[in-house]
Amino acid sequence: MRLSRLLGERYKEKPAEASLISHIFLLRGGYVKQVSNGIYSLLPPAKRIVSKIEQIIREEMDSIGGQEVLLPVVMPKELWEESGRYKAIGAELARFKDRNDHDMLLGMTHEEAAVHLVRNDAVSYSKYPFMIYQIQTKFRDEPRPRGGLIRVREFTMKDAYSFHTSQEDLEKFYQECFEAYHRIFRRVGIPEVVAVGSDTGMMGGNVAHEFMLLCEAGEDTIAVCKQCGYKANLEVARANIKHNDCSENILKEVHTPDITTIDDLASFFGLPAGRFVKSAVFAVQNSSKPLVVFIRGDLEVNEAKLRKIVGANVFPLTEHKDVPLCFGFIGPMGLDEVELDIIFDRSLEGELNLICGANKKDYHMKGFSMKRDIKVDKYYDVSKINSGDRCLNCNSGVIELVRGIEVGNIFQLGTKYTASMNMEYTDVDGQRKNPIMGCYGIGVGRLMAAVIEARHDDYGPIWPVSIAPWHIHICVLNSNKEGVNEFAFELYEKLRQQKYEVIIDDRGLNAGVQFADADLLGIPVRVIVSAKNLEANKIEICTRDKKIKKLVDKDDIIKEIQSLLT
Amino acid sequence: MRLSRLLGERYKEKPAEASLISHIFLLRGGYVKQVSNGIYSLLPPAKRIVSKIEQIIREEMDSIGGQEVLLPVVMPKELWEESGRYKAIGAELARFKDRNDHDMLLGMTHEEAAVHLVRNDAVSYSKYPFMIYQIQTKFRDEPRPRGGLIRVREFTMKDAYSFHTSQEDLEKFYQECFEAYHRIFRRVGIPEVVAVGSDTGMMGGNVAHEFMLLCEAGEDTIAVCKQCGYKANLEVARANIKHNDCSENILKEVHTPDITTIDDLASFFGLPAGRFVKSAVFAVQNSSKPLVVFIRGDLEVNEAKLRKIVGANVFPLTEHKDVPLCFGFIGPMGLDEVELDIIFDRSLEGELNLICGANKKDYHMKGFSMKRDIKVDKYYDVSKINSGDRCLNCNSGVIELVRGIEVGNIFQLGTKYTASMNMEYTDVDGQRKNPIMGCYGIGVGRLMAAVIEARHDDYGPIWPVSIAPWHIHICVLNSNKEGVNEFAFELYEKLRQQKYEVIIDDRGLNAGVQFADADLLGIPVRVIVSAKNLEANKIEICTRDKKIKKLVDKDDIIKEIQSLLT
Repeated sequence: MRLSRLLGERYKEKPAEASLISHIFLLRGGYVKQVSNGIYSLLPPAKRIVSKIEQIIREEMDSIGGQEVLLPVVMPKELWEESGRYKAIGAELARFKDRNDHDMLLGMTHEEAAVHLVRNDAVSYSKYPFMIYQIQTKFRDEPRPRGGLIRVREFTMKDAYSFHTSQEDLEKFYQECFEAYHRIFRRVGIPEVVAVGSDTGMMGGNVAHEFMLLCEAGEDTIAVCKQCGYKANLEVARANIKHNDCSENILKEVHTPDITTIDDLASFFGLPAGRFVKSAVFAVQNSSKPLVVFIRGDLEVNEAKLRKIVGANVFPLTEHKDVPLCFGFIGPMGLDEVELDIIFDRSLEGELNLICGANKKDYHMKGFSMKRDIKVDKYYDVSKINSGDRCLNCNSGVIELVRGIEVGNIFQLGTKYTASMNMEYTDVDGQRKNPIMGCYGIGVGRLMAAVIEARHDDYGPIWPVSIAPWHIHICVLNSNKEGVNEFAFELYEKLRQQKYEVIIDDRGLNAGVQFADADLLGIPVRVIVSAKNLEANKIEICTRDKKIKKLVDKDDIIKEIQSLLT
Repeated sequence: MRLSRLLGERYKEKPAEASLISHIFLLRGGYVKQVSNGIYSLLPPAKRIVSKIEQIIREEMDSIGGQEVLLPVVMPKELWEESGRYKAIGAELARFKDRNDHDMLLGMTHEEAAVHLVRNDAVSYSKYPFMIYQIQTKFRDEPRPRGGLIRVREFTMKDAYSFHTSQEDLEKFYQECFEAYHRIFRRVGIPEVVAVGSDTGMMGGNVAHEFMLLCEAGEDTIAVCKQCGYKANLEVARANIKHNDCSENILKEVHTPDITTIDDLASFFGLPAGRFVKSAVFAVQNSSKPLVVFIRGDLEVNEAKLRKIVGANVFPLTEHKDVPLCFGFIGPMGLDEVELDIIFDRSLEGELNLICGANKKDYHMKGFSMKRDIKVDKYYDVSKINSGDRCLNCNSGVIELVRGIEVGNIFQLGTKYTASMNMEYTDVDGQRKNPIMGCYGIGVGRLMAAVIEARHDDYGPIWPVSIAPWHIHICVLNSNKEGVNEFAFELYEKLRQQKYEVIIDDRGLNAGVQFADADLLGIPVRVIVSAKNLEANKIEICTRDKKIKKLVDKDDIIKEIQSLLT
């Protein structure tokens, strides 16, 4: 490729709209162009990188027995009604009516289409296990697209779906896929990706992992214990709750005029936040009743955990016009007559002598005892973990909260889709059963952006050979001097004949511009052909990471390049 | 691949919903599954074929300097308002509102996105010419999807866009792309594809070609002259009109009670249809005035030609409540006071002594002379060509109408998009100009179906090696006999080591089932390992097209396979 012909300009200046490193370099390097909020076109260098990433993913999916298919972007409403997700999912599912007024949607994930594809064929246990995958465009109408390719609305994704006849078999395959994912991240140049336990969210199922590149640009927060290696997404990380050591006390109403927050209550009573019962009220999607969550005053409600428990989206409320709740003074006692649902966090289990709202304006109760004063059938884990908490896993390390980019996820789905969509097979015992599913995703564009976050310097991305848009970048200095262009183009042709992907800067610009552009393109090996060095029969060669930079005899140049690229 | 693991069943019976050969075999062979009207999932064999077709297209696009990009499926309304197509295109453009109530659409073609991608970068003539292409999913809400993958709503397409600084340069590149297309069709196994002149339709521009596989399954009609090789889509084919040889006559009103059709008039007057003026009335999209077309009575109006002339969609009318038109008796004279537009077909030019409507119920005029009795500024070509017409190109051959599948199309677009979307460059003379565009499409799935239409027998598709889902299909007969399975699997592994793509029928089924499935999978080379032949140290080998079928020494089998596959 001649650089003069390459589409997409490179820019010196940081674009105003970008703050993440990957976003900045994707724009400055002529990799992407925004078409709409969260919707991008890929220019040739990005398309080349993405194709190489896709091929690596394809090879690793094939290596664990995956069969590549192609499922549609546009699907009819009926398919998603079968699984119940047509209603369960909100505005992030883009919907439209076709010319015959039929309800259609844009696939943001493809469990339904995967089950549809195989449910009539895989009717005997002997067909199992199997895995299908695709690399296809998806659209998810994100409320807040951000960070260039980090969070977009339209994206290319590898999504895979496995089908099994037993939980053990799913777990075995899940582990194989887990390892294939680590191989993929290693091969694309980010071996540092870690797997963390995660929420299954709208996917359903119980076990799930996210593959995270830990870095500041990430929008996920992960609880990490350096002591034992415990890692979990904030959405599922379990806090190690140290219970209060109080004795029972007499229950008594206290006048607390206008004192409604935990902070104010703590000052008023001169007690730590952990001695109070905090209430939080939520509206629940598709439910008319509000939900009240009681949790210890030193903790926060984790909405992701809450969503999973109630099986629907939740929205915090600070007032409710129909239900008589005394906001600021809500407490667990005396709510029996009120039309609402209640959840108790496990932080309250067994606690004595707490202070809680009296469900009466300007009053709280003190001496409240969980066991004595109310009846709780079940405690749930809805609390957020905090930085500095003791690790629940090893009980000695301290939890740190770090940021990460989710570059892949895997889920054990169980029979959520196969049962709701009536996919059955005849098992070895003659019984009809629903197969057990797993699903496995990798966002291709986000993965490219993550590689930049992990591998860059002040001047641009540092692509690994495996996914670099080209292998070798030839700069030509003083190209008007005799013999310089000739040598450079001869080298270019020789390298191309050896199947290297080469880009040559044929623009005749000064060294500064050429080097800045080469840094933005991030090609692993750079060859600098200059009049001065050529006079001494020398060629300069360096690597993009700036670790190697040397003059070599011009007759040795191809050998040197080969050794850098193997 | 072990056939027992392959997803997708094969069926003996012709599916009720299919009538086209390609549709039948795609369903019977386990290649595709319908998800909704005109929306299909691809099973592994089809995905493998499609990927190989895509790679061939990619190589040929790269060979003429194409740069691969990726444009979005979902685009904002504003982009298509710039070109004017948001309004100009009807229900086939799928539209939806995103979560912020913003109007979005699904790309059915990508001229707008292509211009958007490059318009800020290609600002100097020195960047030109260039071509970008993508292979991406599109959605076109077809009113009548049909024939499996022949006419669908969602499809994968290679679309390319070239940009030039002169018409000559566009024509030069257009020719290169024309040749690349022929190479593509040759490489995927249908060298018989022909290029025909075509209408530019909603694309705009003037010159366009369609690449047609001529076969009964096609839904396009092409006018062909076997004498001179003239080929054109019915939509643009020009009829060779033989003018009447009449003398001028006196204009006279004739009472023609209830006689309104050309057939009835011909009987009434005892004259051939070519002596009458036929009128056809149309509503024009975005126009309140009706359009009357006058054409000779022996010819029909070609609506595609008409659409192009008026630059909008047209709909035939048989009545009009606001405009005083005397349907059945409409003629060219005395329409000056009526609010309408008129087009005269070139078949009427210079004609004398015709019979036309008198714009008065139950009356016609005879002796009507085009020159003498009305004033016509311009005649247009809006007539349909008919089978049996003399060829206008060679003036001696006879036009035949044949059916064809359109597998590709190329358009010279001119500046329709660059002018409307303000894409400019500075030319060598310092002037700001709009670049001249071409665009070039190939539908990948339809191409796969077209290969089946061209290459099949009664039992299934006959894939060429270049796009076959696998190269070699091993059938194993009497696999329970000693040594049979061992030999077959050893051969399987050896061939795989040589990078052949091999499928082995490991199901232990009878020969009939194995051969029927092998025919449906259409793999070029079949190896039949059987106990009987193995005893004599022989292996049967045959090609899918049944032209070669022989026994070879088992030690020669790999050599024989190699020779069949090169």
